Amino acid sequence: MSATFSKNDTQNMVIALKLASQGKYGVKSNPMVGCVIVKHTKIIAKGYHQTFGKAHGEINALQQINHQAQGATFYVTLEPCSHQGKTPSCAQAIIHSGVKKVIIAMLDPNPLVNGKGVVMLENAGIEVKIGLLENDALTLNQGFIKYMKTNKPFVRCKIAMSLDGKTSMSSGESKWITSEVTRLDVQKLRANHQAIMTGSGTIINDNPLMTVRLDNINLTPLRVVIDSKNQITNTSLNIFNADAPTLILNPTNTKTLSSGKLDLGNVLTQLGNQGINNVLLEAGPKLIGSMIKSNLIDEFIIYMAPILMGSNANSMLNLVIKNMAHKIKLNIVDVRMVSNDIKITATLK
Amino acid sequence: MSATFSKNDTQNMVIALKLASQGKYGVKSNPMVGCVIVKHTKIIAKGYHQTFGKAHGEINALQQINHQAQGATFYVTLEPCSHQGKTPSCAQAIIHSGVKKVIIAMLDPNPLVNGKGVVMLENAGIEVKIGLLENDALTLNQGFIKYMKTNKPFVRCKIAMSLDGKTSMSSGESKWITSEVTRLDVQKLRANHQAIMTGSGTIINDNPLMTVRLDNINLTPLRVVIDSKNQITNTSLNIFNADAPTLILNPTNTKTLSSGKLDLGNVLTQLGNQGINNVLLEAGPKLIGSMIKSNLIDEFIIYMAPILMGSNANSMLNLVIKNMAHKIKLNIVDVRMVSNDIKITATLK
Repeated sequence: MSATFSKNDTQNMVIALKLASQGKYGVKSNPMVGCVIVKHTKIIAKGYHQTFGKAHGEINALQQINHQAQGATFYVTLEPCSHQGKTPSCAQAIIHSGVKKVIIAMLDPNPLVNGKGVVMLENAGIEVKIGLLENDALTLNQGFIKYMKTNKPFVRCKIAMSLDGKTSMSSGESKWITSEVTRLDVQKLRANHQAIMTGSGTIINDNPLMTVRLDNINLTPLRVVIDSKNQITNTSLNIFNADAPTLILNPTNTKTLSSGKLDLGNVLTQLGNQGINNVLLEAGPKLIGSMIKSNLIDEFIIYMAPILMGSNANSMLNLVIKNMAHKIKLNIVDVRMVSNDIKITATLK
Repeated sequence: MSATFSKNDTQNMVIALKLASQGKYGVKSNPMVGCVIVKHTKIIAKGYHQTFGKAHGEINALQQINHQAQGATFYVTLEPCSHQGKTPSCAQAIIHSGVKKVIIAMLDPNPLVNGKGVVMLENAGIEVKIGLLENDALTLNQGFIKYMKTNKPFVRCKIAMSLDGKTSMSSGESKWITSEVTRLDVQKLRANHQAIMTGSGTIINDNPLMTVRLDNINLTPLRVVIDSKNQITNTSLNIFNADAPTLILNPTNTKTLSSGKLDLGNVLTQLGNQGINNVLLEAGPKLIGSMIKSNLIDEFIIYMAPILMGSNANSMLNLVIKNMAHKIKLNIVDVRMVSNDIKITATLK
């Protein structure tokens, strides 16, 4: 895949990626896909996948030009599908439109497609180039890709803590560690996930809503509670209101380990089976510790407030590490300010 | 002080500030001072204060032009001294040189000068303007200014910790939390301080050298150990080697509080009386906690490594805080990467 691309190619793919991201609240377990069709250096059509189960981005673009694209170049952020799924094959539609060349950011990790779309296009005499802005395309659909490769959703762990690494006072008090602006940032983070997961301790101590509360956005990510000890019995808790669906996972409905705790890897597979590609983990130190120990966290978003909470407060992480040789290594992906808080994005190394 | 300045004025003062900073390893308890002399928009002389007890920056510049500066403009980062100290009055020398105009970044907080230098110049018919890049000049001499106003040195607290706020394992193991590049950054930090302070616990557990180890820089900041319980008895400890002077502060030579602990405010005054304007605190959680509680820290430099050390490791801070209402608030002044570590500069709010 050592294809070379022109500056114009790159510009068109940037537009296609931006279009794709507009589908973020609608595509659910599908990938976001954007595309532009270019003829004589002019964009003649644009499209993106808008809604789960509805037309793919390629079809949305082709419809604008009555499926007539003779001699055009087709830029698409993900390999066009080869198979008839909920909608007809996009590769077939592209072939019929008369397109001459297709430029693809990344291959579809879905085993039903993976390379077959490209083969269909090439067999029809279309020139295909792959890999333009591939990393951006990979980042766009982390959840979809992770699920396709592992059957598990992408897990992003959000932590709001003080500069000395504390997430609550010994009394459990934690309102508020971070600024109002940061809390709004967390709402936007929630909106980008299909499920929000926490432990029974957080539910019992804080009785959170665990909903997306943003103006003009109506999203209801699944509320998932890890309840190893069947402690969630009070049906008047906020998670049981009508604002969003809720799934309580306990030994009755989930595989347990010999320790009596839920098998967290299995929990993720269970969520993946329900069409959930990405999960926001907003949990206490115990569940975060267990998730890290099981190597189940893909990314950390840490909001660090400019405060010190002192030595009797609870640490972000309940996980015993013997010595420096066993320390957990992270990659810092991004550091930026959100209002007065420091926002750190990191991955396990 | 609502003086206005031209772009040329600003450019000249920037040069003067850069010159001043060249004195950082030599001036000790004196302020760093830089100056440029400008005639017909051309710089005819530059100077800075190089060595404690030797000529001031103004004199170093005037010497280059044989003390003849008729009609010139004199840019200086600190108000010229009015008094004869270890060296003759700079204001007097400027007057004799024939300078027409003097532009000063900030007044000298030294009560022996504070405004008197300006009055001397003005009485001699020289036009004086004050306040150009004042904040930069204040930052340059934080230690000198703090001492002049409070008789205490500026205290900078350096902490090397993990992302979960831990500074050592329960065993005391802490080698190495941060990267080699960060440890070199710490050496440079040490070089900018007249004293390095720690507690007896750190000395007994880690037996550190507490010296500046940088190529081509020969500096020997005073090693200061807070030893409330007279625990430092072993004279073969590294702090007693010949590389730098060492001061052990214990109840015998320092005022104690009713708690039996040393009066840390008094410790700082004692250091100030010895001509120490700035102290780098590199201590364990207990001493850091006590210093914060006594509100004696001016600035934190926190190096945060991309690692997790877990819940049995020791927190950066040994200080009990009751509830969120009593949390300690900080201002984040700067956040940047040093190699793979995050370097945070903060002050107490």
